[in-house]
Amino acid sequence: MKTDMQAKPESSHDPVPLEKAYLLLNHGPVTLISSCHQGRRNVMAASWAMPVDFSPPKMAVVIDRQTYSRELIERSGELVINIPSDRMLEAIVHAGTASGHSVDKLRELPELCPGSHVAAPLIAGCLAWLECKVLPEPHNQRQHDLFIVEVLAAWADPSVFRQGRWLFETGGPRTVHYSAGGQFFLTGEAKQTK
Amino acid sequence: MKTDMQAKPESSHDPVPLEKAYLLLNHGPVTLISSCHQGRRNVMAASWAMPVDFSPPKMAVVIDRQTYSRELIERSGELVINIPSDRMLEAIVHAGTASGHSVDKLRELPELCPGSHVAAPLIAGCLAWLECKVLPEPHNQRQHDLFIVEVLAAWADPSVFRQGRWLFETGGPRTVHYSAGGQFFLTGEAKQTK
Repeated sequence: MKTDMQAKPESSHDPVPLEKAYLLLNHGPVTLISSCHQGRRNVMAASWAMPVDFSPPKMAVVIDRQTYSRELIERSGELVINIPSDRMLEAIVHAGTASGHSVDKLRELPELCPGSHVAAPLIAGCLAWLECKVLPEPHNQRQHDLFIVEVLAAWADPSVFRQGRWLFETGGPRTVHYSAGGQFFLTGEAKQTK
Repeated sequence: MKTDMQAKPESSHDPVPLEKAYLLLNHGPVTLISSCHQGRRNVMAASWAMPVDFSPPKMAVVIDRQTYSRELIERSGELVINIPSDRMLEAIVHAGTASGHSVDKLRELPELCPGSHVAAPLIAGCLAWLECKVLPEPHNQRQHDLFIVEVLAAWADPSVFRQGRWLFETGGPRTVHYSAGGQFFLTGEAKQTK
């Protein structure tokens, strides 16, 4: 179902208005990029993802040319930016190290929801999803492995993202940031300036 | 002094090998972008900055076309990505909201060190600095306000970044991530996977 109103892929997540979609990625969390082309699916970890525009919301993400995901994304012109939680650290590392050329990494993730606007899957357990179409940028893709994508629909778990704000509770799930060598940082304490 | 070895701009910071420079920005902290052209200087806050390549290290950063910094960066072909600490939250918000067209924002920051490779200043109190030259990308600059820069020299405070790792101590300074509306998240607890 593809209407002007976003179809709701999972009851646990609420739609995020497109003009607020950049806020999901503003603080620099690690992401899982899922893709699908003609039934072939994959997922990869990406720390190199950020907003580049508010309206329409656009994101930039680096997709190495040697990855299996790269082929699926270039052929389908679509991807989903999934924002995983701190409950998924081992899965993130696996998605970032194993190759989709030899392993079905999505098979090892427990549940997948179909996207409302794209064929790439939304990964359950993730705190937010951004369904995106690739804006063809041959120079960026060839020269920098850089993909500029437009967000078509966005979703977030309302227990942690409400009214355009991440609101993490002590002991609850939170986003994470990738350092190196299998080490992450949790998104930490919130500080409000005057 | 511009030699193959990096000149050391401040005794408090150690050089970071260029191949490890991307690690300074990998976890998605907020940045302060400083610039200088023929004596005119400015600083702006930027959350939309990320690595795009390891070697030579390249970063992508969004610089809005309406900013004063944009003019200085396009004319000089240089910028510094400063990584501020949680002790500087009000200064970051000020750098992100006031315009260099009307205010000398750098004058309000206490100390500045000259860059070793660029004229843009290194902002004291920041935990790391990446001195960068702009790689001319007219399409990205015009279409997406996106600048691809190459890191010429990188520096970090060894009390928080050693051997290619951020190591934050309880009560010590740490990097921050920008959410929205003047709210930040501290870089939180480190988690090591197997």
